[in-house]
Amino acid sequence: MYAQINKDNISISHNGNITNAHYLKQNLLEDGCIFQSDMDTEVILHLIAKSKETNIIEKIQDALRKVEGAYSLIITYNDEIIAIRDPNGIRPLVLGKKDNGFVLSSETCGLDIINATFEREVDPGEILLINDKGIKSFSIANKVNKTFCIFEYIYFARPDSNFLNQNVYEARINIGKQLYLENKKNNSDIVIPVPDSGLASAIGYSEASGIPFQLGIIRNHYVGRSFIQPKQELRDLAVKMKHNVNLKLLQGKSITLIDDSIVRGTTSKKIVSLLKNAGVKKIHFKVASPAIIGSCYYGVDTPNEDNLIANIKNLEEIKDYLEVDTLQYLSLEGLYKAVNGNQGYCDACFTKKYPVPLIDQTLKKQQKEQIKLV
Amino acid sequence: MYAQINKDNISISHNGNITNAHYLKQNLLEDGCIFQSDMDTEVILHLIAKSKETNIIEKIQDALRKVEGAYSLIITYNDEIIAIRDPNGIRPLVLGKKDNGFVLSSETCGLDIINATFEREVDPGEILLINDKGIKSFSIANKVNKTFCIFEYIYFARPDSNFLNQNVYEARINIGKQLYLENKKNNSDIVIPVPDSGLASAIGYSEASGIPFQLGIIRNHYVGRSFIQPKQELRDLAVKMKHNVNLKLLQGKSITLIDDSIVRGTTSKKIVSLLKNAGVKKIHFKVASPAIIGSCYYGVDTPNEDNLIANIKNLEEIKDYLEVDTLQYLSLEGLYKAVNGNQGYCDACFTKKYPVPLIDQTLKKQQKEQIKLV
Amino acid sequence: MYAQINKDNISISHNGNITNAHYLKQNLLEDGCIFQSDMDTEVILHLIAKSKETNIIEKIQDALRKVEGAYSLIITYNDEIIAIRDPNGIRPLVLGKKDNGFVLSSETCGLDIINATFEREVDPGEILLINDKGIKSFSIANKVNKTFCIFEYIYFARPDSNFLNQNVYEARINIGKQLYLENKKNNSDIVIPVPDSGLASAIGYSEASGIPFQLGIIRNHYVGRSFIQPKQELRDLAVKMKHNVNLKLLQGKSITLIDDSIVRGTTSKKIVSLLKNAGVKKIHFKVASPAIIGSCYYGVDTPNEDNLIANIKNLEEIKDYLEVDTLQYLSLEGLYKAVNGNQGYCDACFTKKYPVPLIDQTLKKQQKEQIKLV
Amino acid sequence: MYAQINKDNISISHNGNITNAHYLKQNLLEDGCIFQSDMDTEVILHLIAKSKETNIIEKIQDALRKVEGAYSLIITYNDEIIAIRDPNGIRPLVLGKKDNGFVLSSETCGLDIINATFEREVDPGEILLINDKGIKSFSIANKVNKTFCIFEYIYFARPDSNFLNQNVYEARINIGKQLYLENKKNNSDIVIPVPDSGLASAIGYSEASGIPFQLGIIRNHYVGRSFIQPKQELRDLAVKMKHNVNLKLLQGKSITLIDDSIVRGTTSKKIVSLLKNAGVKKIHFKVASPAIIGSCYYGVDTPNEDNLIANIKNLEEIKDYLEVDTLQYLSLEGLYKAVNGNQGYCDACFTKKYPVPLIDQTLKKQQKEQIKLV
Repeated sequence: MYAQINKDNISISHNGNITNAHYLKQNLLEDGCIFQSDMDTEVILHLIAKSKETNIIEKIQDALRKVEGAYSLIITYNDEIIAIRDPNGIRPLVLGKKDNGFVLSSETCGLDIINATFEREVDPGEILLINDKGIKSFSIANKVNKTFCIFEYIYFARPDSNFLNQNVYEARINIGKQLYLENKKNNSDIVIPVPDSGLASAIGYSEASGIPFQLGIIRNHYVGRSFIQPKQELRDLAVKMKHNVNLKLLQGKSITLIDDSIVRGTTSKKIVSLLKNAGVKKIHFKVASPAIIGSCYYGVDTPNEDNLIANIKNLEEIKDYLEVDTLQYLSLEGLYKAVNGNQGYCDACFTKKYPVPLIDQTLKKQQKEQIKLV
Repeated sequence: MYAQINKDNISISHNGNITNAHYLKQNLLEDGCIFQSDMDTEVILHLIAKSKETNIIEKIQDALRKVEGAYSLIITYNDEIIAIRDPNGIRPLVLGKKDNGFVLSSETCGLDIINATFEREVDPGEILLINDKGIKSFSIANKVNKTFCIFEYIYFARPDSNFLNQNVYEARINIGKQLYLENKKNNSDIVIPVPDSGLASAIGYSEASGIPFQLGIIRNHYVGRSFIQPKQELRDLAVKMKHNVNLKLLQGKSITLIDDSIVRGTTSKKIVSLLKNAGVKKIHFKVASPAIIGSCYYGVDTPNEDNLIANIKNLEEIKDYLEVDTLQYLSLEGLYKAVNGNQGYCDACFTKKYPVPLIDQTLKKQQKEQIKLV
Repeated sequence: MYAQINKDNISISHNGNITNAHYLKQNLLEDGCIFQSDMDTEVILHLIAKSKETNIIEKIQDALRKVEGAYSLIITYNDEIIAIRDPNGIRPLVLGKKDNGFVLSSETCGLDIINATFEREVDPGEILLINDKGIKSFSIANKVNKTFCIFEYIYFARPDSNFLNQNVYEARINIGKQLYLENKKNNSDIVIPVPDSGLASAIGYSEASGIPFQLGIIRNHYVGRSFIQPKQELRDLAVKMKHNVNLKLLQGKSITLIDDSIVRGTTSKKIVSLLKNAGVKKIHFKVASPAIIGSCYYGVDTPNEDNLIANIKNLEEIKDYLEVDTLQYLSLEGLYKAVNGNQGYCDACFTKKYPVPLIDQTLKKQQKEQIKLV
Repeated sequence: MYAQINKDNISISHNGNITNAHYLKQNLLEDGCIFQSDMDTEVILHLIAKSKETNIIEKIQDALRKVEGAYSLIITYNDEIIAIRDPNGIRPLVLGKKDNGFVLSSETCGLDIINATFEREVDPGEILLINDKGIKSFSIANKVNKTFCIFEYIYFARPDSNFLNQNVYEARINIGKQLYLENKKNNSDIVIPVPDSGLASAIGYSEASGIPFQLGIIRNHYVGRSFIQPKQELRDLAVKMKHNVNLKLLQGKSITLIDDSIVRGTTSKKIVSLLKNAGVKKIHFKVASPAIIGSCYYGVDTPNEDNLIANIKNLEEIKDYLEVDTLQYLSLEGLYKAVNGNQGYCDACFTKKYPVPLIDQTLKKQQKEQIKLV
């Protein structure tokens, strides 16, 4: 998002979600500000523009003191670059070096690809000012409370990235092994991942259990991207063409099916149905994460709580809904073991313990209750 | 331009140019506003949003009291429409009716095309509020000084539109006749318009003088629009293909060439050269407007004064530059006769008498002079 | 159309229409040829490929001896160019020179635009071979019967082109004058052309009659081209926006309306209706060509005879259908006077005298009759 | 490819390559046929059109008796469908059923995706006529010599397809196991596939050897498809972004790298270089097919023999070129074991024993030799 503030050109890239954006926007509108988009990023621009401080770093500190939520920001300000991570460090942001310059990326794999070297993570609550004099570190505020998003390991991040010195692929292998250690009873013929999200955990599970790893579901990468399907029938076919099961391999088999997580449950149900139609005898569904019971308000696009299957059904009910023979989730303790212990994480999607206050959510609820009282 | 202000959705369409936009923008930036475009329209949005008045009409009045320049605005505000014309009424704006609804258009021909009937012009300095209760008139301020743009008759407007009860095509016919009345000496064989801008004036001139009207220059409407030409050579050809002269008709002839106006003089020079290459013996160039000596700051896209040929050369020099045999401009008095007299017009492009102060221009000059003094 | 024949690359551009294409195609299909398009041009390609002659000119002569109809061809054959005009010379084709090279164009204005000089017309029945050795002339066959399309002067050609040493624009001016000479009774206030097709004839008519020429109908060149209108309502509006009448100019007037020709009559009827709604008192419709009673089978895209209004209604009935006060067509003799006499023309659209046999048409009729007999 | 032949509409889809297309085309050109493309399919169209036989099946038989090479054809002829496989059955073609209709597909997975059921393969040398009366089988000629393309198992086909009752994925798993059985000495830490072509063989190798299977190379499916990169630098980056290695996983490791085949060797060399830069200690490269020494003239797009690395270098030289520590190819016998024995295959790419004569190739060589002799 670009704007002119004072006599300066500023643009902001934003990964994350601000939890009091609506509240701040209402105040700014009352104050006579105009909004030309619905992005929470526009709130940050206004706060920086309205700050009475004299230099840009102080203006940013002033602005961000009012902001709650998850944000990794890369700001270009005239010819300087400013990188910022919120005091909880919920979303990732890393600093690299290439030739004489600095490079910023959400993930370390971004550095690898352009042959840059990893320097360090931007610290939670840190502001980095990069200009032709070099690099300088400032902080947003005193309070820092590290709670990096645990879900990045499970689904979001690329396997060839590292966070907190932990490789994502290895974490997923560990998760697969841990899944087995938590319940060793399993007489499946083969282990089948849901591609591509369940691949690494299934490899780990196979390694730990000795049950052969096999690719029983084929994902067609060419379908459903390039073509915009004008008719519903064609759209359905495109979805179907995305996953195809290997009939010959699966007929009459008892399988362990591994996916990274279950959100709504609808995709899992479709895959189970495809497998059963292919003649699979028994399906033991193992989920490479704990049950998701809370929505994310920090930048992961999860649905409302009412649509999270694990929030509205118990284990037995989910098993029945998916029509699988057994269903196993990873435990939260197991997850922390797999990532080398709990060094401070946000695990609200599994626990509903939200480390940063959900201002807009709370106000919305209060309004609804007031309406009810009236 | 769309924005959210207070809790309301507002969008503005703007015909014209604000002469203190830069000055106002600097103040708004200092006040902490952010600008996401370079359009002067964004200034109006900020002023409305910052007004402390309680209803939208008062907010708009408050905002426009600060604004100088030419503006015809159509604002949609939630589900209301607000039409506004600046106190000088420099740019046109008309109100029509169709079925049970109201219609707004810059020109009356816009109403004809959709079978709407003409109601009246929006008055200079008037604010019209249109909603489901009907239509209501307000005024921007007390001071009204009608100075409608005289150049609309000469070039800008469509011939089938009317302003101030004067038909544009008829005005151009009158201008052609007036051109003849101001100088009756003419032994040309034929009268040739530069298409399409000189058509009506040439018809009027032919009628008054008795010299036959002929189409000697063909304009190819298919060329130079649909195709984006990647190479300079092709672009030159496209320009050339836009006008082609009828060799057979013109060879050995003495002609009166009529165009609506001369701005830089470069296009006129090219056309004269095409005609001479076709074997035209003598060219008497008649211009259907007075000499343009001042830039327009009210919405007509004219170049800087230094590039206006009539501002830097006298009549004799222009004639020599164009390589024509004689050159005649319409007089200002003649122009007013052709439009039924001077009922209050802006003719600054012919006189440099600017009816609305050019704040930004004046400040720019002062800055340059200060820099020189230092 | 491109093809490989023998070991050679050949491509053909074709202006015209072959009147025994269907007959020839049936024979070629029976002979084992495959057709990959519905263009009559593909027939010529096959005939050339199948010729047993030894060089390309002889092969072409051999092929074209079988072909009936109108064709101006430009063939590229490996690195040679071959220009051909049918023995009747129905469609135009001219040869020009630029620098050291030759240029071919349907019309002379094409030469003007690229600054080439006109050499001469390609003669009816002539084959021109252009290669690095220069230019050489051959003939298709002995029989030559010049019948150039008279309709090119009336509508098809650009006004700045010349055919048979006659300028098209001048021909149209002459036509307008002739229209007046054939019927001098006329008390209209003004002469109005249907733009752009009736422009030149209306100028000629005005000059001869002394009735002032005025532009009462505005054609909007921006509409209906760039936009593909998805809804019928929008398409109707686009059509309507193409022509707008100047209300102020026309109200209460008695007018002479001039168009180049009437084909179906539907467009003329719409324009008459627009004018009447604008308050025109009387409409005298003058048509700058004789009545069209025959379809063209030589390359002009006219509808079936049953849809030609002058073929199914008499003068009085057409006048009533169009709802005009008087209706006048140009006489055929008048048309020939306007183009400097009948030097050999095809005027089948006005006379149904077809100079080249309509083989496919005749066969189609015979088949229909046989079906009836059975 | 569509054409009209006789009075009929015909279109042909063609998988394969005709080995005497050039020879046939020369004869057809001499016979007066025109060619509008460079596709060998156009030759078949001409041969069918020129056949003197009376019905379409006989015409096709007549035509295909002249054609040598690999072809699976689906022809639509008016409202009938005709499916054909060459007498060697080199390229695949299967027949399925859905509801009351028949379905044709190159591979069985195409049937699965639309929920059709597999009926049977179209037999080598078979012609199937499908119309509203049902399905009928004809044969091209008496001589049938089954030589299905063995390379379909290795690279071409989708893993979820079956040929000759053999599942492709399982064949690849078997190949991986066989690779281990042919050389059991291996002290690598992990087995790494080149994605996605080496995946299944690597899983098989891991299972047989007990060496853990790991995903060390990440393929980014989003890159290099949607974007057309205008600059070389960006194109290089796009290629680089296609594969990224997981640094953390690979550093200091001794690995077994598995790919399906080596053609030119250039891609393999790049991947080896990426791995070495990531700190891999030792690379044992295992190739899931025999060495490719012959070009394919039957529809697989392989380069000229001179560019096939195994045709110009011996094992030691290839190992040195790739800079790997050891290099192992699968044996031809091993390949046949993996696909349940040699039931008749074309393995010319590994043996240069071409089962169908290479007419065009032979004629080309003879011409070159004649030129040398002269």
